[in-house]
Amino acid sequence: MSCLGNYCIKQMKPSPIIFVSLGPGNPELMTLGCYHQLQQADVIFCPSTANKEGEFTSKAAEIITAVGIETEKLYKFHVPMQRKREAALAAYKECADEIAAMHKKGLKITVAVEGDISIYASTQTIAEYLEDAGLTVEMTAGIPSFIAAAAAMTHPLVMGTGSLIVATDIEQIRHNIERGLQHGSSIVCMKIKSYENEIKEYLSAPGSYECFYYEFLGMGDKEFTTSDKSEIMARSFPYFSSMIIYNPYQSEHNR
Amino acid sequence: MSCLGNYCIKQMKPSPIIFVSLGPGNPELMTLGCYHQLQQADVIFCPSTANKEGEFTSKAAEIITAVGIETEKLYKFHVPMQRKREAALAAYKECADEIAAMHKKGLKITVAVEGDISIYASTQTIAEYLEDAGLTVEMTAGIPSFIAAAAAMTHPLVMGTGSLIVATDIEQIRHNIERGLQHGSSIVCMKIKSYENEIKEYLSAPGSYECFYYEFLGMGDKEFTTSDKSEIMARSFPYFSSMIIYNPYQSEHNR
Repeated sequence: MSCLGNYCIKQMKPSPIIFVSLGPGNPELMTLGCYHQLQQADVIFCPSTANKEGEFTSKAAEIITAVGIETEKLYKFHVPMQRKREAALAAYKECADEIAAMHKKGLKITVAVEGDISIYASTQTIAEYLEDAGLTVEMTAGIPSFIAAAAAMTHPLVMGTGSLIVATDIEQIRHNIERGLQHGSSIVCMKIKSYENEIKEYLSAPGSYECFYYEFLGMGDKEFTTSDKSEIMARSFPYFSSMIIYNPYQSEHNR
Repeated sequence: MSCLGNYCIKQMKPSPIIFVSLGPGNPELMTLGCYHQLQQADVIFCPSTANKEGEFTSKAAEIITAVGIETEKLYKFHVPMQRKREAALAAYKECADEIAAMHKKGLKITVAVEGDISIYASTQTIAEYLEDAGLTVEMTAGIPSFIAAAAAMTHPLVMGTGSLIVATDIEQIRHNIERGLQHGSSIVCMKIKSYENEIKEYLSAPGSYECFYYEFLGMGDKEFTTSDKSEIMARSFPYFSSMIIYNPYQSEHNR
């Protein structure tokens, strides 16, 4: 065995499994790096969910085909609803096993992720299973939905000495509304369907700050956005809805 | 004047000034939408700063030329150091006036922004001046540096019921270290040069959490990253340095 030294070890290293973040839905929000990885992949794993009619749909697959990637490369895997934690874990484990088997055959594998891989992405679990199996994982960054929302709103999320809080938990949001907004913080409230009543209570209270609500951001006709509080109050929040509570001091910091 | 109705009003609307977010430095982190806007622009305003030798350098211009956009389109404007607030405001006002003058001639104007326009981007001030002057502004989202750092680290920033805090102010960071980390929060500490001593104090305290430090992320040879606390302690933080304090519960949430 004459194979010693860093160079040789590098040569022997198998190709990594690449997790690519697609952004929130609009194909124009995909990065050049993500696009290049999709082009170079042999197989692209795409998460899919069952709709009411029992059909499997994949938003990830839609975004990828919209930028002209060959549909033959796409391999849809099924993700059960998050609430059934055990079922979800079993599905992720099965997916990780399939990836490992294809990788062993020498195929270049990419796993597509909606939004960004580091922000509330349950797909991280697949990466952990792969790492446990001794495989190397790489990740490309994507635009989180709240970053896309703020740009669409043409309003800064955070300036100067202010802070930004991103949360899914109503207790954390309450604490930050009480404390943080006086300290120059804006709050991104994610997955608001699960605390819809509490959000509406806040909106109807006197002195509530400027808000920006969005549903299905970047998902074409399904997209809905508004900063009108009465419109938000009248809305029944779907799963893909979030709201930004803007700190009124951010703009003044600016000048 | 027979020009009535929405259609006609839309036709008459002048073209917007487009602020494009380039991402943290690696051209591969630019979005497709940003790239297309740069291609379509007649003039691209790029922020530039003076280095120690008095030469004007523009990271934005470097990123843009790296993706093959013609240098003839680039128009560098000078941004004085942030500390001199009055001088910075005067420079932004001057830049807004130049943009308005070129826009009047019918040119398609784009303003380049490093990172993302909604996260601590002082360029927002130019957008406010333009809006005050009655011009329409549009913005495209970009990858914030902390999103790129988390992907490079292949470690989630936030999962499940956890929160993410992005801050530049040591008091806010202290509060969240005390309170937030027990509640499943990770903290992105931006512009850490200004509270270098306090960060090093935290790192040397017993029980400090896993950290990821980065300098000049995506800026080629200048980039430096580490999760080794002794390496962070030995470092003299430059202006473009940040650190993520990872919540140890995030990975466990994951399983």
